[in-house]
Amino acid sequence: MPKSAIHEMTQLSEGIEDVAFLSWAKPTAGTPDHIKEAAIKAIAEDKTGGYSTPAGIIELRNEITKKLSKVNHIEASPGEILVTVGAIEGLAAAIMAVIDPGDEVIIPVPGYSTHIRQVLMASGVPVCVPTVEEKGFCLDVDRINDAVTKNTRAILFSDPNNPTGSVYSKEELESLAEIARKNNLVVITDEAYEYFTFDGYKHHSIAALPDMKERVVSSFTFTKTYAMTGWRVGYVHASKELISQIKKGHITFSICAPVVSQYAALGALKASQQCIDDFREHYKNVRDLMCSRLDRLDRVFEYQMPRGSYLMFPKIKLDEGKDSLAFAKRLLKEARVSTTPGVAFDSEFHVRMSFCVPEKMVNTAFDRMEDCFS
Amino acid sequence: MPKSAIHEMTQLSEGIEDVAFLSWAKPTAGTPDHIKEAAIKAIAEDKTGGYSTPAGIIELRNEITKKLSKVNHIEASPGEILVTVGAIEGLAAAIMAVIDPGDEVIIPVPGYSTHIRQVLMASGVPVCVPTVEEKGFCLDVDRINDAVTKNTRAILFSDPNNPTGSVYSKEELESLAEIARKNNLVVITDEAYEYFTFDGYKHHSIAALPDMKERVVSSFTFTKTYAMTGWRVGYVHASKELISQIKKGHITFSICAPVVSQYAALGALKASQQCIDDFREHYKNVRDLMCSRLDRLDRVFEYQMPRGSYLMFPKIKLDEGKDSLAFAKRLLKEARVSTTPGVAFDSEFHVRMSFCVPEKMVNTAFDRMEDCFS
Repeated sequence: MPKSAIHEMTQLSEGIEDVAFLSWAKPTAGTPDHIKEAAIKAIAEDKTGGYSTPAGIIELRNEITKKLSKVNHIEASPGEILVTVGAIEGLAAAIMAVIDPGDEVIIPVPGYSTHIRQVLMASGVPVCVPTVEEKGFCLDVDRINDAVTKNTRAILFSDPNNPTGSVYSKEELESLAEIARKNNLVVITDEAYEYFTFDGYKHHSIAALPDMKERVVSSFTFTKTYAMTGWRVGYVHASKELISQIKKGHITFSICAPVVSQYAALGALKASQQCIDDFREHYKNVRDLMCSRLDRLDRVFEYQMPRGSYLMFPKIKLDEGKDSLAFAKRLLKEARVSTTPGVAFDSEFHVRMSFCVPEKMVNTAFDRMEDCFS
Repeated sequence: MPKSAIHEMTQLSEGIEDVAFLSWAKPTAGTPDHIKEAAIKAIAEDKTGGYSTPAGIIELRNEITKKLSKVNHIEASPGEILVTVGAIEGLAAAIMAVIDPGDEVIIPVPGYSTHIRQVLMASGVPVCVPTVEEKGFCLDVDRINDAVTKNTRAILFSDPNNPTGSVYSKEELESLAEIARKNNLVVITDEAYEYFTFDGYKHHSIAALPDMKERVVSSFTFTKTYAMTGWRVGYVHASKELISQIKKGHITFSICAPVVSQYAALGALKASQQCIDDFREHYKNVRDLMCSRLDRLDRVFEYQMPRGSYLMFPKIKLDEGKDSLAFAKRLLKEARVSTTPGVAFDSEFHVRMSFCVPEKMVNTAFDRMEDCFS
């Protein structure tokens, strides 16, 4: 298994001073104060020292069921929830539970590289199906349908998408659901960016579609929603039977999610959700700035306007884009700008840029790139 | 993969009032105040919101190298350390890195059931080799030697041992090391209970033996040492090359350890280590009480005096012990005492009892068992 290009770029940039970072999917802002206060209160009240049950503290799972009903239109019981170490650990455990060695998993690409690695860890076979870049990286439903074989066990995707910023329409998800029902497949989702959609586009949870709840593992996280990346807390929803299988992996990977972070997450759910709107507004503004700066560099890049997440995946028009890692390394060395090479998402001729950064960072990065390419 | 009997017993006991718990390996005491304060300070100073590097914050890795040198006689650089979500996630990532599908892993048993599951998750083959119960569950070095085949890739064990409380002598570890060198095996250790040994017995790290550092993955945790089970923070030491492989699994399972917990762990290492001595003293007293109460129930149990950890593994002398799960369920139902059935450790005719509980809990549990068996 190759090194993670995301983390390799981070390591490379450690040796260079004053880098403009567009490479990490880490929110600009710190965790909101009321969430930090909830964590501090729980520590002071001695609630965070011992293990929780592997599924997570019941107060948190209760609040999660309310959120799932209200936001995702998924009616769940606390027994269908597993609190995990970010979405990532829930996904790792879910994939381990669903996949037997040799099973095929269809993954629309460009997609989050870690998903592919998680399938490989479970000795599964990732079957990557390209999305349609010209149409905003939308799903190519026919190609997905054609990719199904007797060995296909699951479809796995992030929506809103990392790295492209695409947001699948209800119609696209309905087509996917139909393929899953027809072929008895499990659908595994990564909905980490669920709250961050723009321009009237909306995120839909495929588990809310008719007859889908029993065959979908939906993973969510507090990480992106509440600027809580360092806290490592997320959750998975699935049927009780699937949850009891996923829990076996969860116990083997982590026993339980960090308890202090579970209380922070509880504080996040119980308070006003205004901070999410503020984050969304900020990301939209930075997206708009990034796109306007990309327009000025249209000899080098072309792009699909991201409809969601806080990531975008511009195409490199220069010939040197064929080696996206070399291109990203050149940007780092010559322009002191850190991006993530497309190869990390199995797509040369692209770089991923994050717009979860201050506007100043975007301007610095693009000033430098303009100099570099002039 | 069967359900975890440890967690099944916990679930069963949820329906019963006023249970005397001897089943969870969760320390009596809460996390010491100075560690909680370090966590609160880091939150207040806004250090815990964002991801750390996957390997963990450098201040913590620096302190860990000092501890490894002083306590374990392992000379390490920060680049050889990976901070993980408890020892468990480090072990899962290490096993995933070391084992290819079909590789055999030798595990002395009774051993920690999760180790076996982790090998299965990596599509490896656990090869369980019994220890010698009559000699305090010591290693049967000849049988381990005989168990090596051309497919053997690693030896995996916990020392001090969960569930038996055995502590391997330097001579036993030297014999294991010799087998590893001769057959080019990796040794993977779980040293979670490293600080808790009694009666003059000492814990030794096999990585400190000559020529072993390059072939050992040692895993440690703050969990048991500092009564920090809920914080989910531990670490792995291995050679730089192995660490870079293990890091791939680590990123896929968790991205990084919870950052607030990393600061709590830093607080633990930088302060006085007196709390560890206090915990050890407490566990020894409870062990002595538990053994004296077991002596009074010698129609039902016989036992090997635990030399370390805070767990022991009494043998059930009654015929009904052949189904240890049924026996443990009977104890739960009739005596309201929760123990962990030996089957969880692949050993019928045993239950695991934890002595990381208040003395009162031991007395209540044994009063009830005396009634039950009278």
